[in-house]
Amino acid sequence: MHAMKVRELGEFGLIDHIARMVRGSHKPDLILGIGDDAAAWHANAGVELATTDILVEGVHFNLGYAPWEDIGWKALAVNISDIAAMGGNPEYALVSLALPPDTDVQSVTEMYSGMLEIASQYGVAIVGGNVSSAPQVVLSISVIGTSMGTLLTRSAAAPGEMVAVTGWLGGSAAGLGVLKGDVHVPADVARILSVAHLRPRPRVAEAQTLVRSGVRTSIDISDGLLSDLQRICEASRVGATIWLERLPIHESMEKAYGADSARLALSGGEDYELLFTAQTDLIEDVRADLGIPVTVVGEIVSSDKAAVEVIDAGGHVVDVGTAGWDHFAIDK
Amino acid sequence: MHAMKVRELGEFGLIDHIARMVRGSHKPDLILGIGDDAAAWHANAGVELATTDILVEGVHFNLGYAPWEDIGWKALAVNISDIAAMGGNPEYALVSLALPPDTDVQSVTEMYSGMLEIASQYGVAIVGGNVSSAPQVVLSISVIGTSMGTLLTRSAAAPGEMVAVTGWLGGSAAGLGVLKGDVHVPADVARILSVAHLRPRPRVAEAQTLVRSGVRTSIDISDGLLSDLQRICEASRVGATIWLERLPIHESMEKAYGADSARLALSGGEDYELLFTAQTDLIEDVRADLGIPVTVVGEIVSSDKAAVEVIDAGGHVVDVGTAGWDHFAIDK
Repeated sequence: MHAMKVRELGEFGLIDHIARMVRGSHKPDLILGIGDDAAAWHANAGVELATTDILVEGVHFNLGYAPWEDIGWKALAVNISDIAAMGGNPEYALVSLALPPDTDVQSVTEMYSGMLEIASQYGVAIVGGNVSSAPQVVLSISVIGTSMGTLLTRSAAAPGEMVAVTGWLGGSAAGLGVLKGDVHVPADVARILSVAHLRPRPRVAEAQTLVRSGVRTSIDISDGLLSDLQRICEASRVGATIWLERLPIHESMEKAYGADSARLALSGGEDYELLFTAQTDLIEDVRADLGIPVTVVGEIVSSDKAAVEVIDAGGHVVDVGTAGWDHFAIDK
Repeated sequence: MHAMKVRELGEFGLIDHIARMVRGSHKPDLILGIGDDAAAWHANAGVELATTDILVEGVHFNLGYAPWEDIGWKALAVNISDIAAMGGNPEYALVSLALPPDTDVQSVTEMYSGMLEIASQYGVAIVGGNVSSAPQVVLSISVIGTSMGTLLTRSAAAPGEMVAVTGWLGGSAAGLGVLKGDVHVPADVARILSVAHLRPRPRVAEAQTLVRSGVRTSIDISDGLLSDLQRICEASRVGATIWLERLPIHESMEKAYGADSARLALSGGEDYELLFTAQTDLIEDVRADLGIPVTVVGEIVSSDKAAVEVIDAGGHVVDVGTAGWDHFAIDK
């Protein structure tokens, strides 16, 4: 059977197709979704949030191992995660999509299915967008959200606070290795790690629990624990120490990667867990409320260089080299 | 002198550079701009608007003839124009930028200069963004705006109303021809047409005047008069007639393109003028208030096929072929 191409459907046919698909995500406050010059909705007075992220084929994902549905899920997930990291609630999404004209319409349908699946789970309405041709797939999403008023920022960390993370670290990078065929592991482990890479679950409710508990500093782990903690240290003008033996490493990952697990947990990135700082007793309160693993992995210290040090079980500083992901510095 | 490349500055260096540049665009309601997980601002209760557009090198612009400053201007202009077409006020912009790693930092600086120039003229704060590597330049911008409450939509046109446009038509497409070297014209004409293509001026204040005057249907001309009028006809379930001899064609364009001017005015696109419908007396009121050319170019008629017909001075239907711009159907 001939698979219809985006080129045959045309720009306006594709927009109509997408508009019909996303209609189910709409909510009562929405006045106009896709189909006019801009989306429109009724908003309450308060603090609003907005974030944007761009995913480029060959840079952020590879169609050889990432199914279209998962690309859709993840592209929206990373934006929802940024709203989560502020303690906010994601509300509306705009999707800009650039595609080679010979892309199958079915692929676009699958991508939006993945987006709509996470949109539904997090109460996000897809209300606008834009399609264009391009030599490779580019997916740029913006999410607008609301806040309870108190924000989780990067700039409120203080010496004496502990550094904590939700969930497990390094699983996404480990899953990427499995998907690329760099590492061979049993099928059940492969599945767990692949899902960690392809279908991250932003910590929206958990971050709001942090806000209510009195936590004030958080970031989501996108570039890696070390790199993202560095962002907090720079914004807060403090330093941090990470205790290597405390990193929350899932047993599936330990099995697959052995001694390399710690490196992935420190620098792998794309875990989309929350990294936050707070006093010890506050973290204990939060741990009881959250119902997911919360691990203290280090502490905030005074430093005028925003230095992040990793210390092993013997108290020795570990040389971790260049950590995290820089989109331009690393040759791919 | 060695020109510093984006690769050398690195992702975080580039973000810092951009964050410093855009700080001047900030306004009192802004709580957090670039530098945290999301932008945050104080919002009043009311109707909000959001739009997004993506520009791809080689598809929407060509670095061979479009200076970086103008690319920045236009990328923000097209989004401001979408907010204008709803009768809204543009407030905040998010900029996603994908670049080849060997792009000169100076080029990025110039692009943001162009964006900041139009941002300043229209009171828009650039508050967020994202940088990534890509094989070619991709610029995806989202703009969030507010509305007085009454929206200009595509779906309120009714038979008996006239079709009117602001300004001149076809200048942008004519300017593109001049920039590409397809057409040779005197330097003063070349300048006027090039500016029409590279530096469109969204009709924000003019659209708000339309709303206050009682106009309810408008779209901005991005794909071309015929194509955009077709959108109104489809959304409003009406048809339209365009009178060929009434098209507002600037004398510079007539000089450069002669008999081809009408085709550019009908289908050239990217003029970012307002196309609106209203009763004749309302258009006369609006004309007095606007202080820019307002031309009645046709009328809305009953039609169950959303048909748009072009009629020449003798009353004959003109065959205009496939009009407007489809990103996938046209081979480039």
